[in-house]
Order: sequence, then C-alpha cells, then structure tokens
Amino acid sequence: MSARKARPAPAAFQGERGAFSEEAARRLLGPDVPVLPCVRFEDLFRALQEGRASAAVAPIENTLAGSVHENYDHLLNFDFPIVAETNVRIVHNLIAPKGIPFSKIKRVFSHPVALNQCLNFFARHPGIERVPFYDTAGSVKMLMEEKLTDAAGIASAVAAEIYGARILRKSIEDDRQNFTRFFLLRTPEYARRHPVAADAHAQWKTSLVFSTRNVPGALFRALSAFALRDLNMAKIESRPLRGKPWEYLFYVDIQGRVDTPNAQNALNHLRETADFVRVLGCYPKGA
Amino acid sequence: MSARKARPAPAAFQGERGAFSEEAARRLLGPDVPVLPCVRFEDLFRALQEGRASAAVAPIENTLAGSVHENYDHLLNFDFPIVAETNVRIVHNLIAPKGIPFSKIKRVFSHPVALNQCLNFFARHPGIERVPFYDTAGSVKMLMEEKLTDAAGIASAVAAEIYGARILRKSIEDDRQNFTRFFLLRTPEYARRHPVAADAHAQWKTSLVFSTRNVPGALFRALSAFALRDLNMAKIESRPLRGKPWEYLFYVDIQGRVDTPNAQNALNHLRETADFVRVLGCYPKGA
Repeated sequence: MSARKARPAPAAFQGERGAFSEEAARRLLGPDVPVLPCVRFEDLFRALQEGRASAAVAPIENTLAGSVHENYDHLLNFDFPIVAETNVRIVHNLIAPKGIPFSKIKRVFSHPVALNQCLNFFARHPGIERVPFYDTAGSVKMLMEEKLTDAAGIASAVAAEIYGARILRKSIEDDRQNFTRFFLLRTPEYARRHPVAADAHAQWKTSLVFSTRNVPGALFRALSAFALRDLNMAKIESRPLRGKPWEYLFYVDIQGRVDTPNAQNALNHLRETADFVRVLGCYPKGA
Repeated sequence: MSARKARPAPAAFQGERGAFSEEAARRLLGPDVPVLPCVRFEDLFRALQEGRASAAVAPIENTLAGSVHENYDHLLNFDFPIVAETNVRIVHNLIAPKGIPFSKIKRVFSHPVALNQCLNFFARHPGIERVPFYDTAGSVKMLMEEKLTDAAGIASAVAAEIYGARILRKSIEDDRQNFTRFFLLRTPEYARRHPVAADAHAQWKTSLVFSTRNVPGALFRALSAFALRDLNMAKIESRPLRGKPWEYLFYVDIQGRVDTPNAQNALNHLRETADFVRVLGCYPKGA
C-alpha cells in the first residue's frame, strides 16, 4: 500500500466520465479525486476487492425511481463497510455538440430512467424522438464522437464540461425533488485505520441487514428491537432471500451510532429474533 | 358490456406470445383464455382502463430478482383491484429453430434477467455469446423470423411451441427456486359483480398500501396494527413517495380476509397512524 500513497488508487464509480456518480465521488472525496469509471455496478465492488480502486461510490436510492436493488445485493455479497453517504440533486440538461441549435434536434439519447424523468419536455416537443441509451453521460460522449448533427443527450452539467459539449436547455427534469443517495465504500482495513471521529458530526446513521425466522410476527418483533429503544428507522428495504422462496432479507437504516450502549442493546435484542444480522456501516448523515 | 359477452375481451399481459406471463394468464383464467400481449407494463393497466382487456396479469415479484417495482407503482396509480394471485415456476429453456444443432449455437438472445439466471450454462460454454434482448419469448420469435442459423433464445416451453421452435436444452436456469408471483387485476365493477366466495378457499391474503407521518417510530406503530391482532405480514415493500424526498409508501401483504372484524379493526387502527391507506385487494392465496 505504501507505493500507492504517492498516487492514490482512484475511486470507482459506475457510468462514463461525467455521470452523476462522478459528482457524488467529488463531493465525498474532493474535486480532484482520481476516478475509475466502471461499466457495471458489480465492477465497482470488484475494483475495490482487487485493489484497483481505493474507494467505491455506489448509488443506493433515488427519490423518484426508488432503490438501486442490485447494489443492496452487492453490499451483502461483498461486505465492504459504508463509511459515508451523500445526496446529489439530479439536474437533467439537454446537451448537444457546440454549434448545433435546438431547432436541429430530432433525437435525444439518454438512460431510460433519465428520459422518463423529462416527460414534460418531450410532451412539449412531440417531434423529438426519445432514444434509450446505456448511460446519461455516455450519450453525450457518443454524440460528440459520432459528430451527430441532429441529436442531443440528457446528462449532468459535468458531462457537458468533460466532453466539450454545450447545454441547450438547463434542468429539463419534470420533478425537482429528484435526489440520488450514494454510499462511499472502503475496504474493511481502510475503514479500521481511518475511523471518522465520533464528535465530528451531530447526526449519524447505521445501516444493517437481517433475515428473520419464518414465523408469524417475526419482522415486527425484529423492528421492536429499535422502536422500543427510540432508535428511529429512516429506511427499510426488502430483498428476496435466495434459496428460500417468499422469504426476505431486510435492509434497515437506523438514526444513530452503532457503538452506543443503546444501539448495542438493540442489536443484541435483534440477534435474539433474527436468523442473521450484519452491520453494513455507521456513517455521518449526508447533507 | 353485453355485446362483449359472446366473445370475451382478452387478458392483457406484458411480453410477446409465449412469455411466462402468458403461462400465468392460462393458469389464472384457463388454458383457452384469449390474450392481448403488451409492450410495457403500463400498457396492461391502460388496456384494462380502456376496456380493450377484461383482465390484466402483472408480475409482482420473483424469488431471485425481487419485486417488480414498476408494477407496485401502477397498482397505486390505476386502482384496479387484485382478485387473484398465482406463482409460476420459471423454467429457462435453450430454444433454436428446428434443424439447428447445439454445436452451431454461437449467440444466445434473451432478456438480461433470464441471461443472468443461466450463468452456470454460460460458464460451461464460454464460446457462446450472451446477447441482451427485450423479451424472453421475443428472442425466440425474432430468431425464427430472421431465420438465424447460429443463434438460440432462452424462454419458456410455451414459446417454443408457439413459434414452432425446438428446445435444445431444458431447464438451464442456475437455481430452481425461481418463481414469479403474478396478480390478476380486474376493473372495480367486474370485481364487485363477481366476488369470490369466502368459503371457497382456506387461505386468503389482503394487499394494501399506506404512508406514515414522518415521525419517529411511525412504521413500527403502523405495523403494530396488524401484529397486535395476530395478522401475519407475508411481505413488505417500500417505494419512494413522490414530492417528499426520503419518505416512503409501504406495500404490505397480510394473511387473512379484509372483511373480518379483526382485519377491519386493524385497518381502523392503521388509519389512526397513517397519512394514507388503501386496500389493493383481497384474494385466495396462490398455490
């Protein structure tokens, strides 16, 4: 690891350069953080596992589209601690190569979720075709590389900057209450050597995952471990338990630090009623 | 409606003819049910709304991939009662045009979820390329239409039958604990005129959706309405509440009939603590 200190290993994120995940990485790790764009979510976790990245930045939920369920599964399968979170406001911009006026735009490329979040724009411009693409920022990269003269992409302002394109229309998303929450993941060794000071932040969250025995009232009793101790639950997400049809894993975010006596008592209580419990991380609440 | 009685309006499902949803439709409505294949999940609901279909068959969860979150959103937005459920075992078959031997297969088309559920097969045959396609049964339809001689699809046995193709390898899925649960939806008028007899089935489920006030312990208190009355919760699913970032709608399945005094008391209790409550349906538990 000492050899890496001079040039730190990059932060892995999913998507092309300029993705909203890159914005999250800059927010979590500073504007000059070196980055490693990855094709799939799983690649983020592999990059961290194989030492090609020093951190992974993974979206976990969006206030319109909901949870990124695949990343919940990876959190369980890879076991990298969550050490921070951040919320990024998703601003969708219509972006085209410089010199292409809005009147020339016949097709708009972007990720299907982004296209679906700009329906009012498309309703106002029925002559413009929506074309699903694998990535928001990637759509801008592609239309610059292909020198398309009748097309635009929908992506972040950072994507326009990175690929030298121009924003034709700012903030064309239907709903401005559009935020994505990202987790910062580190290796267990890194997290142990770099603990976040407990007094540095007023509010904390603890994320955990558990499965209950398949008996009536099991989930309610599991949640009582927190509720009876006034530990507020900020989120619950269920995922199927492989090999046990119609049973579930529950991912829960609790407000508070895991290392307080109250939280430790709650965890001990939870372990009495749950088949399986794992703490996924304890981190300052994002802005 | 009387004019339709002679030739009943079809059951809408998502996917091409031969999709697993068609198997669910046959199970729910009989082997000879006329069907209306739809491109998108939303189209199912629109077809029912516009009277082009007399029923809609919507997948709601898979034991490996998890919930079909989009359909949870449609259940809320369209307000069609759930009148039945069924569980279909997902068997993935490798299907090619007749006369094409396995040794000629270089590419396999299917829906990304299906491709991902046959990873052992692809690991055993590294020379075969996986090609994501929009639909399982649609991949078989396409390779028959295009007369491809080096390609196969992954789809249901019904798809092979419908398109006159041949099953080269049966049941290539990694995990046989692969089931999809489907809901049968009707119009409110139809459900009122055709109630299912309460004594015809031993076990019932009630599905509902609610949102809680944004106060500590709100979800726990909401769930106590059921737990304190021994009404077992079979499933909980959360979805983002539009316009209120980081607040959620909760979809819950309870074991039991909604019209019992116990369930009615639970609903009244829930309404005391919830901002919003809607019963989505009460139906016999699927086999």
